[in-house]
Amino acid sequence: MGKMQEVTLKDTERIDDLERNGLKIIQDTGKFCFGMDAVLLSGFAQVKAGERVVDLGTGTGIIPILLSAKTEGEHFTGVEIQEEMAEMASRSVAMNGLGEKIDIVRGDLRELGRDGMTADVVTSNPPYMKEGNGLKNPDDARAVSRHEVACTLSDVCQAAGRLLKNGGRFYMVHRPLRLCEIITELRAAKLEPKRMKFVHPFADKEANMVLIEAVKGAGAECRVEKPVIVYEAPGKYTEEIWSIYGY
Amino acid sequence: MGKMQEVTLKDTERIDDLERNGLKIIQDTGKFCFGMDAVLLSGFAQVKAGERVVDLGTGTGIIPILLSAKTEGEHFTGVEIQEEMAEMASRSVAMNGLGEKIDIVRGDLRELGRDGMTADVVTSNPPYMKEGNGLKNPDDARAVSRHEVACTLSDVCQAAGRLLKNGGRFYMVHRPLRLCEIITELRAAKLEPKRMKFVHPFADKEANMVLIEAVKGAGAECRVEKPVIVYEAPGKYTEEIWSIYGY
Repeated sequence: MGKMQEVTLKDTERIDDLERNGLKIIQDTGKFCFGMDAVLLSGFAQVKAGERVVDLGTGTGIIPILLSAKTEGEHFTGVEIQEEMAEMASRSVAMNGLGEKIDIVRGDLRELGRDGMTADVVTSNPPYMKEGNGLKNPDDARAVSRHEVACTLSDVCQAAGRLLKNGGRFYMVHRPLRLCEIITELRAAKLEPKRMKFVHPFADKEANMVLIEAVKGAGAECRVEKPVIVYEAPGKYTEEIWSIYGY
Repeated sequence: MGKMQEVTLKDTERIDDLERNGLKIIQDTGKFCFGMDAVLLSGFAQVKAGERVVDLGTGTGIIPILLSAKTEGEHFTGVEIQEEMAEMASRSVAMNGLGEKIDIVRGDLRELGRDGMTADVVTSNPPYMKEGNGLKNPDDARAVSRHEVACTLSDVCQAAGRLLKNGGRFYMVHRPLRLCEIITELRAAKLEPKRMKFVHPFADKEANMVLIEAVKGAGAECRVEKPVIVYEAPGKYTEEIWSIYGY
């Protein structure tokens, strides 16, 4: 780990402890804060030694920051379209002394991979909701993180498809409600879903998240792994959740 | 229930008790015998009073026989391409006195629905394996039931799509390994998956069956219901399985 830098915080920002390797992250209470989705994705994604990873729509930078601690990946690039989010994520990277391992790039994922940029692994916790569904203020930073204002599901899958060579892996977390669209869009980008994991808040409730591994150019065979159950009783996490959080 | 008829059995046939409403079924030890798949599908499918149901590739006739007992559906047609299977299923229907409620038709599902035949609900427990995968004798009755010799996944979805009007429901059980192909083929037939249930042999094992409800012409939103776990300990069914079997 490189030298940790002191950073300055804005009035609405706070520093949260990630409780892993001493990592911390800056979040803005007025913007989108990361959720369990990103943490579960960082536990589901497999990044091998030496691999280069691109995270699409990185927001706070949570996914590259966690993956840099959990895996032996060589380098991580977080791409974020919102300037203020990208700047805040950069400060989190600097604060953790991860500047050599993680780049935060302000950019539009719809342009990614058109210049020959490649990755071994792509990750994304993209906006879940279609533009317009309950949307009040499309300029609001939370709206851009939650709704398909700046990119659609198709844009995300196409970007991953452009960045990956055959055999490259794309890891995404999303809502099961959109599973069929997800599978259609992934396959349209030559990304074949190979591994899925559904997350149920309780053992007797429907799934509210799905974790997907898709492999560029692979054959059609998909494994649906044992489900993740979040709570074993109200307010009480299951052992699996504790172990993913790494407490 | 109509008058139960006495039937004659061939040497390799036996009568199994379905332990529901006194129903019995003829099975041939040398042919494909129904499994938990068909029983789970009959618990997952929703058939309302007065609806007409077509079962594609009905085999022993297990699905229409169980659905006639579990639902208030008005009429059930089981379509089977193999002459001997269709004839055996017809004897099971007669034996149970269900001749007015269930028709077994020998036919090729690739031709179904082209003559204006319609259904409110279509069900299917189709062959799971692609033709050729481990296939030794393509003429064997078990091969036709298990492998896509006489029909492909696409044929099954297209037949269901032809039989159903908008809003009509298709219920299928299949292998999760083929989930992405299934979703692609359903959507190609204008059948939108709306409800899925994964079946795991144990809580910590990957899914080995998926139950799918697809609705003709519906919008893209899919619910992934709480998983079915088959065994709570080796050899010991969970309560949910007992209740689906109806013991």
